[in-house]
Amino acid sequence: MQPFESLGLRHDGRALWVLDQTQLPDAEVWLEGSEPAAMIALIQRLAVRGAPLIGVAAAASLATFAHRGASATEYSAACAALRAARPTAVNLMWAMDRMKGAADPVAEAEAIFAEDVRLCEGMAEHGAALIQDGEGLLTHCNTGGLATAGIGTALGVIRRAHEQGKRIHVYADETRPLLQGGRLTAWELRKLGIPSTLITDSMAALLLRDGKVQRVLVGSDRVAANGDFANKVGTYGLAVQARHHGVPFHPVAPFSTVDLACPDGAAIPIELRDAAEVRGYGPWRWAPEGMPAWNPSFDVTPVDLVTSLVLDRGVFTAAQLRAGALLAR
Amino acid sequence: MQPFESLGLRHDGRALWVLDQTQLPDAEVWLEGSEPAAMIALIQRLAVRGAPLIGVAAAASLATFAHRGASATEYSAACAALRAARPTAVNLMWAMDRMKGAADPVAEAEAIFAEDVRLCEGMAEHGAALIQDGEGLLTHCNTGGLATAGIGTALGVIRRAHEQGKRIHVYADETRPLLQGGRLTAWELRKLGIPSTLITDSMAALLLRDGKVQRVLVGSDRVAANGDFANKVGTYGLAVQARHHGVPFHPVAPFSTVDLACPDGAAIPIELRDAAEVRGYGPWRWAPEGMPAWNPSFDVTPVDLVTSLVLDRGVFTAAQLRAGALLAR
Repeated sequence: MQPFESLGLRHDGRALWVLDQTQLPDAEVWLEGSEPAAMIALIQRLAVRGAPLIGVAAAASLATFAHRGASATEYSAACAALRAARPTAVNLMWAMDRMKGAADPVAEAEAIFAEDVRLCEGMAEHGAALIQDGEGLLTHCNTGGLATAGIGTALGVIRRAHEQGKRIHVYADETRPLLQGGRLTAWELRKLGIPSTLITDSMAALLLRDGKVQRVLVGSDRVAANGDFANKVGTYGLAVQARHHGVPFHPVAPFSTVDLACPDGAAIPIELRDAAEVRGYGPWRWAPEGMPAWNPSFDVTPVDLVTSLVLDRGVFTAAQLRAGALLAR
Repeated sequence: MQPFESLGLRHDGRALWVLDQTQLPDAEVWLEGSEPAAMIALIQRLAVRGAPLIGVAAAASLATFAHRGASATEYSAACAALRAARPTAVNLMWAMDRMKGAADPVAEAEAIFAEDVRLCEGMAEHGAALIQDGEGLLTHCNTGGLATAGIGTALGVIRRAHEQGKRIHVYADETRPLLQGGRLTAWELRKLGIPSTLITDSMAALLLRDGKVQRVLVGSDRVAANGDFANKVGTYGLAVQARHHGVPFHPVAPFSTVDLACPDGAAIPIELRDAAEVRGYGPWRWAPEGMPAWNPSFDVTPVDLVTSLVLDRGVFTAAQLRAGALLAR
């Protein structure tokens, strides 16, 4: 296989490695994910995460498995198991459906990787054009180089605006419970040298009210045919707050995140994770032992709260989405 | 002095003790706060917290100081220093203003304590009457026995409804960054046996959308003359979300929290705390070292987002508040 590499994924021609995102920002530890069973475990415990990246990583793992001589039966079982590793992000299913029918799994995985890089460039170009000099931008979760094979979705747009010389300031929600904003987005923003401030999720409304945010940009794990979309829990509340303050709100996603088989947001399955993630973080617990907790990983934002969706092929307003712009692709 | 005791404050006749709320729920450690200088430190590091309780605790500390023979000059300096310990909750200033002119500081502190217990009863009776059987209730931060000398403000109302036999379910926001909901409210709810579920602050909007919440009840650190009020950061965002979903939203506060000298919310000073509180929790850090962060402890909710304010002497709608109901007291 040809070597390839992104911020969080690396193939050295022989084996596949992922940067363990649960150990960021303090340690940069690479773990092998060549075996599909190992990759499933890495995806489920969020060592590798980000809707586009888990599709790319699963495809690369499956290709490595095939390259090492897996039988058709083994390949097919691994493909199905990877497809079911997490329920909400549709990119994983989309990538596995491509891999399932691929004549050359290695070439297909390489194509999926290269395509994700190009899709990020498309989103970045279209999205950055929306951003004006001097804007304060609010984002949620992590949607950058760690979440994709390329420069990212929402954070890729922000990075491109910064590279274009626009003076922006980024406010990053820490994104409880797994703190992808506080750990991963903060880490990327500092690496990129983009002026930024970390906040708790509960401070976003106050920032909006104070006029410090001119635009909200978020990623997506699945966009339904009508423009409703699922993203990390907290996104919906942010959309409500942005609307209340008249601030534009944009999901940013590649076409591989669009699921035309989902008519609307109600059809998107939402992953429920362990309540222990809410009672603390990682090895640490601060809530009383045994306190019941609810832990949906995602929520659904209706298209009515979307200003426009930034796709790799252009920007679509809520009115265009409601009129079937995604179905016309 | 006469002994007195609440969930978080205890006077044994000789010395004053506070339950260290930073160590809850795992350890119940009592620290001495007889000396005003010690009490100031306890208040500033939130070992003792809750708008009503810090007023009561500061008064008790000052009374103990007087009882032990402080000079008039020492008393007066301690009173001024306690008054300035934290800027947002007006109860502290209100209590110190009473203590400053008190002929008998011990009797005055005992009166402030007893009065706070009675005020909680008043809020509980008026507020519980709003709650219907079967309601889901959402609350933020901690407003119970740990935050007052009595049964609490918003959580006291909830407790009373539970005691009245109403079948309620409480959703508690964890309340980042200092996790007063996840640590303290969860601890109180379990002690009281009230059915409850912990969520991250980012999950509240989804709960509201799912129809699981029929009423939002929060405390307050200062109510302005027009009904705008300050409370723990995140309250304003919750008020916006409650309005979007048509769910009633009630601040609950005693008259000692009302500041008629503040015409509206814009005049309420907001405490900014150390950015390190956002980069982690307690001894733990998860964001990159040195990541800039913003840490306002409070936000202001305008009266327009209030359904009604539960005071110790009754319930006042937003229209009544705008018409000057607080000034008429």
